[in-house]
Amino acid sequence: MTLLRTHIGYSLRAARTAQGRTLRSVARDARVSLGYLSEVERGQKEASSELLNSICSALGLTLSSIMTDVAVELTAREAVTLTVVDAA
Amino acid sequence: MTLLRTHIGYSLRAARTAQGRTLRSVARDARVSLGYLSEVERGQKEASSELLNSICSALGLTLSSIMTDVAVELTAREAVTLTVVDAA
Repeated sequence: MTLLRTHIGYSLRAARTAQGRTLRSVARDARVSLGYLSEVERGQKEASSELLNSICSALGLTLSSIMTDVAVELTAREAVTLTVVDAA
Repeated sequence: MTLLRTHIGYSLRAARTAQGRTLRSVARDARVSLGYLSEVERGQKEASSELLNSICSALGLTLSSIMTDVAVELTAREAVTLTVVDAA
């Protein structure tokens, strides 16, 4: 099952690693614990909307840019799933 | 502050009312309580990723379609905010 938190985590991690930043640096700037950020990135914890904004801000990104990434990834994933189902 | 849960709530409510359906009907099909769905629609509660999938499924929508709506709305809202800031 495709979960929103999984894709939000992927996008946040991709943005952070593209910037060459550590979990510690982003967690500090976002004022969240390193463990919390790590769990959010791995899709193991739902980020509250407020803390998601803090993390986006710490990464210098807008919420819309992260959610656009998420929407594109979800759409691509669902297209692949439909193709596999059609082929079955 | 723009919150993700507010925009998810708007999109879910817009989809439900466009289908002419009641909270009760969608909550029953999604196997969530009416109060929970109402709070999610009003942006007062964060929907867990699993229950968001159940609500999308009850509405006959994909998660990607709801999240694309959310991304478009967030982008439009941020553009308006930037315009107001520029004009100030």
